[in-house]
Amino acid sequence: MFGSHIDSVPGGGNYDGDVGVIAAIEVAQLLHENGIKTRHPFEIVSFTDEEGGLTGSRAMTRGLSESALRVVTHSGMTIAEGIRAVGGDTDRLGLARRSPEEFAAFIELHIEQGAFLHEEGIDIGVVEGIVGIRWWDVTIKGIANHAGTTPMNRRQDAMLSAAELTLAVNKVATSMEGRQVATVGRIRAEPGAPNVIPGRVVMSLEIRDLDANKMQEVFDAIKAEAEEIAEVRNTPIVFAEIDVASPPAPTDFRMREIIARSAEDLGLTYKFMPSGAGHDAQDMTHVAPTGMIFVPSVDGISHSPKEFTSAEDMANGANVLLRTVLAIDRGALD
Amino acid sequence: MFGSHIDSVPGGGNYDGDVGVIAAIEVAQLLHENGIKTRHPFEIVSFTDEEGGLTGSRAMTRGLSESALRVVTHSGMTIAEGIRAVGGDTDRLGLARRSPEEFAAFIELHIEQGAFLHEEGIDIGVVEGIVGIRWWDVTIKGIANHAGTTPMNRRQDAMLSAAELTLAVNKVATSMEGRQVATVGRIRAEPGAPNVIPGRVVMSLEIRDLDANKMQEVFDAIKAEAEEIAEVRNTPIVFAEIDVASPPAPTDFRMREIIARSAEDLGLTYKFMPSGAGHDAQDMTHVAPTGMIFVPSVDGISHSPKEFTSAEDMANGANVLLRTVLAIDRGALD
Repeated sequence: MFGSHIDSVPGGGNYDGDVGVIAAIEVAQLLHENGIKTRHPFEIVSFTDEEGGLTGSRAMTRGLSESALRVVTHSGMTIAEGIRAVGGDTDRLGLARRSPEEFAAFIELHIEQGAFLHEEGIDIGVVEGIVGIRWWDVTIKGIANHAGTTPMNRRQDAMLSAAELTLAVNKVATSMEGRQVATVGRIRAEPGAPNVIPGRVVMSLEIRDLDANKMQEVFDAIKAEAEEIAEVRNTPIVFAEIDVASPPAPTDFRMREIIARSAEDLGLTYKFMPSGAGHDAQDMTHVAPTGMIFVPSVDGISHSPKEFTSAEDMANGANVLLRTVLAIDRGALD
Repeated sequence: MFGSHIDSVPGGGNYDGDVGVIAAIEVAQLLHENGIKTRHPFEIVSFTDEEGGLTGSRAMTRGLSESALRVVTHSGMTIAEGIRAVGGDTDRLGLARRSPEEFAAFIELHIEQGAFLHEEGIDIGVVEGIVGIRWWDVTIKGIANHAGTTPMNRRQDAMLSAAELTLAVNKVATSMEGRQVATVGRIRAEPGAPNVIPGRVVMSLEIRDLDANKMQEVFDAIKAEAEEIAEVRNTPIVFAEIDVASPPAPTDFRMREIIARSAEDLGLTYKFMPSGAGHDAQDMTHVAPTGMIFVPSVDGISHSPKEFTSAEDMANGANVLLRTVLAIDRGALD
């Protein structure tokens, strides 16, 4: 259907989103070289601050709220201060916002950041959506006491309840069918001295899945386990949900089919899969039919200097992107 | 044997060691008022910094090492700087040292800092010794990974192993006969973010008992459990012992009998018991026949503004101390 083909993309490795931008530029270059004029304007966007909270894509879609601008980041600056520090004008952020009428479709190409494609030797991931994320601070209240003078059978040790709950989180997430994940990544025992029985433990709980009901089901099961632990050990457990939740963001059903067909036409293997990580595409689902293409990550490593995707895999992704763009331009979504 | 009696000691409540000093002063006062001259010099000592590492009693007995003086305390100062800050002269610390020949006996009176006496309604605790303390930093090595993209069955989650080990510590300590205690009071997961599977957890382990062999037995059993957890979860676990260990310090057998007899003569109930907390008496066991008297702590609370011992219990302790001092002076140890 189309004579030219992307044989390689420049750059030995890549860092996270870079592969997507590089592939998009290759697509633009190839369209230009072949004198192909698309019916729709073809835009390439490299969003600002995907890692820090999808600031760029949020500004373009829903707009950044006052409270989002006040969030303090690792740098010690707020998002607003950070935007000004890199030369942005926070008074003109509204100009970044685009209306749904402006988009025929949005496509994001990204490394998988997981090991499924690499291990199964599959070329392309057709992303079914970006999983939803919910976070809680879980507080367990015991009684702090002298670790030398308080006998074992007289303790209300918040740390023991935290340990049981951590194992319960894992048990719940692994005992249900499906691809849901639940993680305890942060824990703090108070007062936090080797010679004091912890009187309070605060730990994080994160649940992710592509289905919001499933996420709630996982949480309810964990909460039921927590209630039993709290009662048996006489250590009340309180869950406080943190307001960083992002609901599951399914990709457009037609876009998935177009991407799959593009891979098939190129003789590439592909797989439908969710994205466990967050992406700018999740905000774009609110304003445009959105699709997402994954290429393999060696050993699933990401956000690390060891992150690597081969030149061949990057070229495969760029070719699927090219075919997908052309298919949409020719009316595949109409 | 002796007409006068201590009816009360001043001070409504007390703070930790204070009751011992107050009672000792009462004893001295009563000896003076009754014109009683002891055969042995009667000295009252209020040691500096019992809580911070037994600095005073160590200076008097073994002497403070260079490394002990370099320990940085919560104040941010080293022990040496702290001594100078309160007006001490670190060049003359050697003068504080006393030789064993100077002591006929050493007796310490202290609140229990536990709830045994209060709850059982017993007047006096005859301390069998100060339990030994050993500390470890336990490091569990997993693989840090993206909590969204790493499926549950592909994780080497150091936090899960830490949770299992915490419960194993409790199981070992409670499943053996005896009064040993084992505690996990501090825990840190790294990198410590809600959306990252912990790649490393460092937690404290403390074991206390009056018998050094029992402490080793408890540790060996915990270590065996750790080895199994490490293997099953593929997360190596390393124990690094911290150099703050204090060996068990049994009190003098004859001193226990003298204290028990003194309580009996006064019509008080008493109980032989270990001290789970550290005390200056533990250093004194190296230089003198040492005895220790406990009075009840209401609800076992200590190191808290809620700490309380009744005036009657304080007077009981002072009277036992008085009788014990007189018995020793009259040759009960000879």
